[in-house]
Amino acid sequence: MMFLQILFTFSFLFSSSNALDFCVGDLNTPQGPAGYSCKNPEAVIVDDFIFSGLHVAGNTSNLTNSVATPVFSTQFPGFNGLGISLARLDMAIGGWVPMHTHPGASELFVVMQGTIRAGFISSTNKVYIKTLEEGDVMVFPQDLMHFQFNVGKSPALAFASFSKASTDIYIMDNAWFANDLPVDILQKTTFLDPDQIKKLKGVFGGTY
Amino acid sequence: MMFLQILFTFSFLFSSSNALDFCVGDLNTPQGPAGYSCKNPEAVIVDDFIFSGLHVAGNTSNLTNSVATPVFSTQFPGFNGLGISLARLDMAIGGWVPMHTHPGASELFVVMQGTIRAGFISSTNKVYIKTLEEGDVMVFPQDLMHFQFNVGKSPALAFASFSKASTDIYIMDNAWFANDLPVDILQKTTFLDPDQIKKLKGVFGGTY
Amino acid sequence: MMFLQILFTFSFLFSSSNALDFCVGDLNTPQGPAGYSCKNPEAVIVDDFIFSGLHVAGNTSNLTNSVATPVFSTQFPGFNGLGISLARLDMAIGGWVPMHTHPGASELFVVMQGTIRAGFISSTNKVYIKTLEEGDVMVFPQDLMHFQFNVGKSPALAFASFSKASTDIYIMDNAWFANDLPVDILQKTTFLDPDQIKKLKGVFGGTY
Amino acid sequence: MMFLQILFTFSFLFSSSNALDFCVGDLNTPQGPAGYSCKNPEAVIVDDFIFSGLHVAGNTSNLTNSVATPVFSTQFPGFNGLGISLARLDMAIGGWVPMHTHPGASELFVVMQGTIRAGFISSTNKVYIKTLEEGDVMVFPQDLMHFQFNVGKSPALAFASFSKASTDIYIMDNAWFANDLPVDILQKTTFLDPDQIKKLKGVFGGTY
Amino acid sequence: MMFLQILFTFSFLFSSSNALDFCVGDLNTPQGPAGYSCKNPEAVIVDDFIFSGLHVAGNTSNLTNSVATPVFSTQFPGFNGLGISLARLDMAIGGWVPMHTHPGASELFVVMQGTIRAGFISSTNKVYIKTLEEGDVMVFPQDLMHFQFNVGKSPALAFASFSKASTDIYIMDNAWFANDLPVDILQKTTFLDPDQIKKLKGVFGGTY
Amino acid sequence: MMFLQILFTFSFLFSSSNALDFCVGDLNTPQGPAGYSCKNPEAVIVDDFIFSGLHVAGNTSNLTNSVATPVFSTQFPGFNGLGISLARLDMAIGGWVPMHTHPGASELFVVMQGTIRAGFISSTNKVYIKTLEEGDVMVFPQDLMHFQFNVGKSPALAFASFSKASTDIYIMDNAWFANDLPVDILQKTTFLDPDQIKKLKGVFGGTY
Repeated sequence: MMFLQILFTFSFLFSSSNALDFCVGDLNTPQGPAGYSCKNPEAVIVDDFIFSGLHVAGNTSNLTNSVATPVFSTQFPGFNGLGISLARLDMAIGGWVPMHTHPGASELFVVMQGTIRAGFISSTNKVYIKTLEEGDVMVFPQDLMHFQFNVGKSPALAFASFSKASTDIYIMDNAWFANDLPVDILQKTTFLDPDQIKKLKGVFGGTY
Repeated sequence: MMFLQILFTFSFLFSSSNALDFCVGDLNTPQGPAGYSCKNPEAVIVDDFIFSGLHVAGNTSNLTNSVATPVFSTQFPGFNGLGISLARLDMAIGGWVPMHTHPGASELFVVMQGTIRAGFISSTNKVYIKTLEEGDVMVFPQDLMHFQFNVGKSPALAFASFSKASTDIYIMDNAWFANDLPVDILQKTTFLDPDQIKKLKGVFGGTY
Repeated sequence: MMFLQILFTFSFLFSSSNALDFCVGDLNTPQGPAGYSCKNPEAVIVDDFIFSGLHVAGNTSNLTNSVATPVFSTQFPGFNGLGISLARLDMAIGGWVPMHTHPGASELFVVMQGTIRAGFISSTNKVYIKTLEEGDVMVFPQDLMHFQFNVGKSPALAFASFSKASTDIYIMDNAWFANDLPVDILQKTTFLDPDQIKKLKGVFGGTY
Repeated sequence: MMFLQILFTFSFLFSSSNALDFCVGDLNTPQGPAGYSCKNPEAVIVDDFIFSGLHVAGNTSNLTNSVATPVFSTQFPGFNGLGISLARLDMAIGGWVPMHTHPGASELFVVMQGTIRAGFISSTNKVYIKTLEEGDVMVFPQDLMHFQFNVGKSPALAFASFSKASTDIYIMDNAWFANDLPVDILQKTTFLDPDQIKKLKGVFGGTY
Repeated sequence: MMFLQILFTFSFLFSSSNALDFCVGDLNTPQGPAGYSCKNPEAVIVDDFIFSGLHVAGNTSNLTNSVATPVFSTQFPGFNGLGISLARLDMAIGGWVPMHTHPGASELFVVMQGTIRAGFISSTNKVYIKTLEEGDVMVFPQDLMHFQFNVGKSPALAFASFSKASTDIYIMDNAWFANDLPVDILQKTTFLDPDQIKKLKGVFGGTY
Repeated sequence: MMFLQILFTFSFLFSSSNALDFCVGDLNTPQGPAGYSCKNPEAVIVDDFIFSGLHVAGNTSNLTNSVATPVFSTQFPGFNGLGISLARLDMAIGGWVPMHTHPGASELFVVMQGTIRAGFISSTNKVYIKTLEEGDVMVFPQDLMHFQFNVGKSPALAFASFSKASTDIYIMDNAWFANDLPVDILQKTTFLDPDQIKKLKGVFGGTY
């Protein structure tokens, strides 16, 4: 008897409340400044909070001998609204990651295997660079350019977490050379010689 | 003449602007990470900003002899986007509120009538507890477990405000015992004995 | 034996962590954009989270027959960093609160006793006004001018909560007339007649 | 060969990512607490980030001899989600801007031409006022009333930027007099005499 | 010649700017609501951004056969202000992590080795639980209780990232039993029997 | 009589309140994640909110024929905590601004004089570029690389506002070449040829 009554009272509280503990992204809705609209909470299942396959190495590119596998809110809608995301980074022997940023996100970088030389550059042009071993953590502050090298004798593996549900891998070379930005504009804004620009436009599939 | 002109200029400014002073929630839209979509401002009326009935005591449960009446953005869409909400708490003689948190919200607790002994526990396991009289205010910092007892000789009444338009009353016992979470999992994660768990599953309507 | 070991492990976790669950303001430090520096957590006591005396009516002014008693983070450092604060409002028969805003804060207004006619004005010049009875809640969206009248036959009492640890009661008349702002500037920026301005400078103690 | 492979890897990264660098507002969607929904990124064009015509002076009112031309996210959806907006202010000789605020936004005010006397009033009733010349910058802190006068012998021009994609020009006189707010309410809440109120209701097109 | 001039101009820009790209915490200063004060940027070195030793397994407790090694801003001041932190979790065969939350933080949980059964409970009392293998990622939304079990035949290892520079491991049992909270208060607020409470006070070193 | 009483009541309210309307930065204090500590409000004067001299053109560099004059919170402490700042941009005939970002800030760019061709690059490598005339406004979304050219036959002038009190002008060339970053690291992370790198290290004063 007594038990029924508390159940009644408490379940009243809970059924009358729709506060959202989470906001699994509904990828069919347009995004807003704060992310996707929430999937109907009634339809949310445990698999909405789980992403599988991060133990599998990606296929490294022949050029950089590395590959990053991002898990952002568009790949994994469970992150929507929660302010965190991640990526796996595989680097073959001699592999590296080109100069890049992650708009709006800080990166927490953990070396799982191998020896990685990593660095970032502050807006006062100071370079912070160090060789990291397994178990070392480095943090790349928000919006600063950084890079990584596998300087060891075996493949390297790292996991990166980001302080944002959705960011991007914004690679300077891609931004400059993988599109139709004219040579003369690039020449002046990057101070690079035209021949250098044309060569890299070729590498990154841009036109001129 | 002069008057007409200022009217023209100023009303131009205002008609060309749709900046939202408020965002009354449209409960028919899916929520996003920042709350509901805004009801069409043209359709907003004064009653969208008013909620009635908080002077009426709720029916207290026989088990805890208390009841909380929440007014969050789902009960009162006028709160949507404004970062504040509230609840009324009635406690019969001997009533209490079980251990609970409010995800993402701090609570400002004001004793209106009676004598309430209230406390919270920090993440360093320190207990902050005190007996409050009418007119006393206590603040429960965001996400910490807290509880309240009517330790007086008459019914007690309190009002609670929250630093969020939409939170929930997250009661540890309900979370543990009012569902199908297996006994062996609860036994290990809570260190409770199986008999204790089964007894409370019975009280809170869970299964095992 | 077993028990000692878990204690060792867990207390290690806790002693090595200084994450702050709360940030009771140290009023002797300068404020920053986010509030006061935190009082040393070791020195924090339960009374830092408690404010007393809100059950006592303030002395109402003879002019407005009302008085507001604010409890912001400077009166109550326990609010620092928690994004919430409150005030008590007493209105004698015929009392009112002049046009005002609370910079950066929304207000949740609960009528405890009496009959209060309250309103706010949007930035599209629309007036939202209603007579509230005991138990009615009204929300005044952030930064909009609002006012309250005791329109009943007995004293009225209300509690207001704010979505900010520290705001202010920004009364338009005080801002305009309780200082040395010249009459000609006020005349043009408020469109009031000089005689009206001088009269109100007299009321509010300003100079000209 | 090598080039093809890097292209494959990098374009895989980019095609699988829909992180939004920007969120051009779709004005056909309802707003949410954080702004408009984002226009489909595929459909975004450069003109979504460009607004033209700010070099043209607005038509100044005969009453104030000034006019503000706002460019907020509803006029310019490219600002949506980016936390910034602007306005152009033209002041004829003798022109001024009445007492106003911008809900939720700070204002950065740059004098381009002429001599402008500008001021704001703190919530402790202190007036901060100064005569500004071309090239002077003044900042009006969030939610405080401010005003500007052309005190020079030629027209004045200023640009204002705001710390919010969408705010409003919230003019106290308009809010008080350009609507149906009753004279007796205004009399008490503003301390103005009824005749003064009726006169200004006439000026601003309100009723009583 | 030309080169000298650009150097002059650009270095002028940079020397006159002290914008902070990062804010390495100065642990000797009191914290504020947003974290520690920043270490003098001139004194910041690369090691401020690096934390070592996460490849070393912690000593698992005999009771839970698990141990978490947190790296929050107090352990690693480089995280200060960057909104991210992490922990390493070691679970021996049969080990588990008790019911806990992380105040104010979402958790991104990556299984590195072994088979872990993990779950969380929403504020509507729904349980989201699943068995995770190496390479599986699970996200625990902000402030919800969760737990993990090593259900495999070998030790398990996981890395957790948090959406906050500084949070805590807030274990319900510790909060309830590792202090002087009286038995009668616990009995009512947790619905546990007194004998059960006393037994667990013994386990967790509390008094009664 | 009546007047004295209202003065008493209201001044009580105001003297007991120290809510900060603004937080003029005290440059002698260390910064925190949210900015500088606030200057004592009693000592704040109107000049703390005013910055002069923006009407004066900067000396353009011979290399880029342009110069940016930043006004961030370190140059102008009045911006501290207010979320906005600005810069003046002078471009001689043929001048340009190299590829750069502003960490954490969106930029609102207004052309005051001349003809400026401006563009930014999204993280999907798409270029948004347009020729702007006097009175055109362009917005560069947060953290994306952008550039500007004076393509007209006269000097050009623009004002830029930023959505942050303190950001920086983060020029890719300076970050890469104006320091001791080794040639081999730059070669791989930027795909530039060693000769090109060495040449630009010479231009920007770096070493190798």
